[in-house]
This record gives sequence, C-alpha cells and structure tokens, in this order.
Amino acid sequence: MTDDNTISILGLGPMGRALATAALAAGHPTVVWNRTPDRAAPLVERGAVLAPTAADALGRAPVTVCCLLDHDAVRAALADVPDGSDGTLVNLSSGHAGAARETRAWADRRGLRYLDGAILTPAPTIGTPAATILYSGPRATFERHRPALAAFGGTALHLGEEIGTAAAYEMALLDLFTMSVGGLTHAFALAAAEGIPPASFARFAAGIGTLLTDMTGRVAGQLAADDFSSPVNTIASAGSAIAHVRAAAAAHGLDDEPLGAVGRIVDRAVAAGHGADGYARLARFLADTRSVPAST
Amino acid sequence: MTDDNTISILGLGPMGRALATAALAAGHPTVVWNRTPDRAAPLVERGAVLAPTAADALGRAPVTVCCLLDHDAVRAALADVPDGSDGTLVNLSSGHAGAARETRAWADRRGLRYLDGAILTPAPTIGTPAATILYSGPRATFERHRPALAAFGGTALHLGEEIGTAAAYEMALLDLFTMSVGGLTHAFALAAAEGIPPASFARFAAGIGTLLTDMTGRVAGQLAADDFSSPVNTIASAGSAIAHVRAAAAAHGLDDEPLGAVGRIVDRAVAAGHGADGYARLARFLADTRSVPAST
Repeated sequence: MTDDNTISILGLGPMGRALATAALAAGHPTVVWNRTPDRAAPLVERGAVLAPTAADALGRAPVTVCCLLDHDAVRAALADVPDGSDGTLVNLSSGHAGAARETRAWADRRGLRYLDGAILTPAPTIGTPAATILYSGPRATFERHRPALAAFGGTALHLGEEIGTAAAYEMALLDLFTMSVGGLTHAFALAAAEGIPPASFARFAAGIGTLLTDMTGRVAGQLAADDFSSPVNTIASAGSAIAHVRAAAAAHGLDDEPLGAVGRIVDRAVAAGHGADGYARLARFLADTRSVPAST
Repeated sequence: MTDDNTISILGLGPMGRALATAALAAGHPTVVWNRTPDRAAPLVERGAVLAPTAADALGRAPVTVCCLLDHDAVRAALADVPDGSDGTLVNLSSGHAGAARETRAWADRRGLRYLDGAILTPAPTIGTPAATILYSGPRATFERHRPALAAFGGTALHLGEEIGTAAAYEMALLDLFTMSVGGLTHAFALAAAEGIPPASFARFAAGIGTLLTDMTGRVAGQLAADDFSSPVNTIASAGSAIAHVRAAAAAHGLDDEPLGAVGRIVDRAVAAGHGADGYARLARFLADTRSVPAST
C-alpha cells in the first residue's frame, strides 16, 4: 500500500469506466484492471496505469474500488492476494446482503479493510452532483477514504456498520426498478399491439411515475402504522384490473406471465381476506407468507 | 329520453359514487342505480333519485354513465332495455378494446348512442381539476354531452372515433400501473425481510418513480426511432440485476415469481442477440414474438 491518493479500479464495464474517468478527472493517480485489458486503452491515454493483475492493482493504492459482475467475480479476480495484505477494498459490484457478508469474511482472512456499496444512479451520473452511492461497513474505514470516494461525485451515504445494509437497499431498489422496466416495456408492447404510437402512449404513461412516487410514500406510511384500511384503491380492484389487462394481452397473443404472477399474489391476498385493504397489505402479506426464514 | 340536463349513473362503487356526487355538486338532476340499492342512500339524501332498474335509469336521462365491474355487467344490467330505445350510454367500466366493440354492437342493436371511456385518476380526483377521463366513439356524441361530462371535472379528452381507443390506452396504462404496484409491494417486503424500516426504504425508493418517468420518454423515443443502441442501461445488465434480486428473495423465502417471469423475457431477448440493446428493445421483442395476431 502506498500513502498517496491513488485509486485502483477493478472492472471496466460502463460503470467501472465511469468511476475511473471520474477518478482521473478529480486528479487522482488512477490504476485500472480489467479481465480483458483492451478496455483500458482510452483510460491509459488519459493517464491511467494498467495493472497486469487485480492483485497488483490492489497493491498499488490505498483504496481499490471493484465494479465487477458479482461478488464471485471479485473474489476470483483477487484469489491470489496473499494473507496479511494491506489495503481497503470498496466493492460496488451488485449482490445481496449475504454475498456482502461472505466477501467481508474473505477480506478479513487476507487482512483487508472492507466496505460494501451500491451505486443507485446510472453511469452517466458518476462524477456529477446527480450520483448517489450507498456504503456500509466500518465507519472509520468510510471516513478514512471519504476524500477519495468523493471523486465519484454526488451523494456518498454511509448507512451503518452492518456490512450487508447497502446491498439490502440495492436489492430492494433493483426489485422495484426491474419490475418497473418489465411493466413499462410490456405496456408499450400492448399499446403497439393496439396501434397506439409510442409517443401518444408516453404522454399518459409518464404520469404513472408520479403515481408510483406518491404510492411509495403512502405504502410506507400504511406499513409503519400497520393500518391498511381506508385505501385509495383496494387489492380487490387491482385483481379486477389485472384480469382486464390479461384479457387484453391474451387477445393479442402477448406474453403476460409477469402480470399473471402478480395476479396470483393478489388472488391469494384476496382469498386470505385482504380484498378491501390498500396495496400496502400486499407487502405485509408477502413478508408474512415467506416459505423459509432468512438463511443468510 | 328527456331533454333536460339529468345524468344517470349506473354502479355505485367508490368511483360510481364519486361520479354521482360530482354530478349533484354541479347541479345536475341525478338518477342513480346499483344492484344493491342500499349503496344509494347517502346520494338520495343529497337529492339523487334512486331508479328501480338500470333500464329505468337509462330512460330518465339523456346521458347514462356506467361504472360497473366490466362490460358483461353493463350488458347484464341493461338486458331488458328494448330495441329502438333512445339515449346515450357512456361506459366508464374497465375492459379491453374488444369488449368496447362488443358493447357498441349491443348498443347499436338497441338504438342507443355509445361512447366508451376510461377514468385515469383515482376516485377522490373526480369533480376536481385533477381528474382525467378518456373517451372514444362518435365525436358528435361526445360534443353533445360534453357539458354534462364536464361535471366530472378535470380533463375530458376525446381520443377519436374508433370505439376501442380509450380502452386500449386504459389497458396499457393499467398494465404498467399494476406491475408497478406488484414491484413496489414486493420491494417493501424484501426490504422488510432485510430489516429495513418502511420509511427508510421509501426515502430512496421514491426516486424510482422519477426514473420511471424519465425511462418512459426514453423508451418512446427509441421505439419511434427504431434505434435501441447506445443505451443508458443494457438488457444484459437488467438480466444480471434480476438474478441478484432473485437470489436475495430466495434467501428470504419470498415469492419472486413476478420478477422471475420478467427475467425469462429478458433471458429470451438476450438469447435472441439483444443483450447490448436498451430496454426499449424488450417492448419491440415482446410485440414481435406475439403468439397469435390480434383476434379482437
């Protein structure tokens, strides 16, 4: 480990390249590594140093930021890091809380300090005020590297010492995000099947994002109060709406398995007596009907 | 049919009651009918007339607005309306475009003018500037009753003469909305399983609504241009995110069938060579891989 303000970046996908570019732009000596080294060329042109191995990159900087496919890829890339190494690993690769705990144990065995993190905003935001990155792990480690992490811009939030917290938030947010992507693209496909031009549909569909933001606050309030009565819309009405949409999709031969699966959860909640409750009850119902307790 | 400004409302669920209340508040003589008549009591107290049958209500007003469970319920309620009746039926009950076409044919046989419509905003907005209601069908019929329909407030949009258009928009919007409800409630359940309090999760999740609005415009633009390159996020990255979230859900024994079904669509799109494209490609892919042509 050096005592300078060098940052190493492991993984040069779109997000890793954005992180390396932001580090260079903020004036940090920047070391990069990627499994396929040709990805590094534009960064080397701008002054980055290409490390021959991930372990070498880790040894050249006080803080090494990982942005790989998943936690397995992080541990595989750094498999030859010897025990008793020095340095800090900041893992921004996606993964669930259990994976973060495994990687922390792996880092502990090698003597590495470890922070887990999650990037909440798209690659183009990195290095700008719009970036938001969550971190969890030892506060002292976060504070020590805060100046370096500031190179990535925007908001860097330390959520707590529990290593899995950032990953837990990331998973729940990605759950909502990827379901929204699935719903949005299916809705455009259904609109297209009905002959509705994309821009005409978007004119009305853009308002659903605003509704979703309103609903997010309302659902949180109902869950916190454990009161699902007096809903704006009932679970039963959602079941009825889903049946209508599925009939429309079926008329056009469109795959409607995602909405069908939502409908089965709604139907189970109605059968359990929750039809007159607000949507927030579905979250409680799902949590209450988990098939196994948390195993990680 | 009378020549006055009476409005009849069929169906007194939350939305039907809101419509009747708005009609009364705007000074219209208001006739109401519901399968179970006790629902009408608060409206009768405010001056509404309770009709003994739906057909009777239809005969008492130049315009009759339906807000029942679906199109089958509309035709069943009005089964004894004789051929050669006069009047206008405005059906705001949910249903797909094919159902709207069936109900128009049914109305034609009885000599009734017919508009189909869709209410896009929740019951509490009715009678306020926030209401949005879409209509389709003969423009002359829409213009004739526009002053009466103005009682429901907000924006009344005539989308065109094709009777199924309002229903088509409604189905695609409900598709997005109900998938978002499914994603939001599952995300809160996953957060709860990880010990994240609802308000803490909502603090970050509220931003997904904004992202969804941004994505809606971006997806529309890519579909209109038929250009899915240079994405902010790739379909392959969505597949990777879904795999992470499913692992997190599985660790907690949470039902993750809805996201699993989205993941299967994503996987098929990746297998078809679209992994490096933007999300909008998923809409095109779904539309292109429909199992049957539109049958209604």
